Amino acid sequence: MAQQKKVSAVVIRRLPRYYRYLGELLSTGITRISSKELSEKMGVTASQIRQDLNCFGGFGQQGYGYNVEFLYMEISKILGVENGRSMIIIGAGNLGRAIAGYANFAKRGFRLLALFDNNPALVQQTVGNLTVYSMNELNRFLQSHQVDIAVLTIPRAAAQQVTDQLANTGIRGIWNFSHMEVVPPPGICVENVHLSDSLMTLSCNIEQMQEQES
Amino acid sequence: MAQQKKVSAVVIRRLPRYYRYLGELLSTGITRISSKELSEKMGVTASQIRQDLNCFGGFGQQGYGYNVEFLYMEISKILGVENGRSMIIIGAGNLGRAIAGYANFAKRGFRLLALFDNNPALVQQTVGNLTVYSMNELNRFLQSHQVDIAVLTIPRAAAQQVTDQLANTGIRGIWNFSHMEVVPPPGICVENVHLSDSLMTLSCNIEQMQEQES
Repeated sequence: MAQQKKVSAVVIRRLPRYYRYLGELLSTGITRISSKELSEKMGVTASQIRQDLNCFGGFGQQGYGYNVEFLYMEISKILGVENGRSMIIIGAGNLGRAIAGYANFAKRGFRLLALFDNNPALVQQTVGNLTVYSMNELNRFLQSHQVDIAVLTIPRAAAQQVTDQLANTGIRGIWNFSHMEVVPPPGICVENVHLSDSLMTLSCNIEQMQEQES
Repeated sequence: MAQQKKVSAVVIRRLPRYYRYLGELLSTGITRISSKELSEKMGVTASQIRQDLNCFGGFGQQGYGYNVEFLYMEISKILGVENGRSMIIIGAGNLGRAIAGYANFAKRGFRLLALFDNNPALVQQTVGNLTVYSMNELNRFLQSHQVDIAVLTIPRAAAQQVTDQLANTGIRGIWNFSHMEVVPPPGICVENVHLSDSLMTLSCNIEQMQEQES
């Protein structure tokens, strides 16, 4: 798609949500949807939806709506989901195991290959059908496997050092849960996850609701 | 603060990030910062920062910058963080345990009281210094404890039923990790967490980087 490069960072942030909703529609057998219906389902305005979807070519037709499967496939291309990305998890504690157990990743084309940890008590354990390897084996593993994404579920103190270690290994992206915004080596993208941000937002919404009641 | 009710949903979504950065500044002993410096640190424009912070009263002074501690405290009030919210976790699997082990919540005034699970193998286990209770004990617990927030780390199939069970129990907010957008009872806020959305964003950014390189 020639339009891909024009998609702004703001719209990119919203695409996963469209992708998720369209996937749910598909799974319930809905093949067509108007921007109005999609807007009610997603809680955003219809004009926002039309604007966003126009960004990458505008697949809707007046009075006819969007072809759900086509839109889903186009968004999956932009998201790079159909490329079947391979992942490893660095940090096999509770959070690493929780992510390893999340079956939806596989459904969306993300293949998890292995977990790594520097705790000898965890090394050689299995998580689902995967093995936990020692951190000493990381470099060798990356030389013999094509891995696109490293998931960091390690303490913040180790995050930058492990990130630096991923330079020139073929890793293209870091999904970082370490509560610290790491600086990636050249050619590697980072997505920093701050779980507590959404807890703060919840707390703020509770606060505002209570003020309105009082 | 009289201005609190005017803060828009969009700005509220950005406040946790300001709060996080300001907290880091405070912990490194920085007491004053200009919108320009804060903008470089956070990767947003200075004018965005001025606009956002003006929303709730505008604490900056021309040529003088922001008082970091004052701003931090004001934002913490808006976020309702200083109120010391109490939480329980429903679902004591890997993700529930990972969240229970996240020490930063306590630092930010969120007190975790207990975990609940319907798996007999987990009931009466301890996670940190907390006990895992049976789901049968949930109602009694909520009658005898003031709990503000329920964290849902349960499979999606159970999410709506457990949500409905929280009606009229004193719970004010649900932090929902169940991969399903639940419909809350009246008077309860929900924050739905979709971990895979940020993985999709990462995948999309990798895709765009590769296109630019090719």
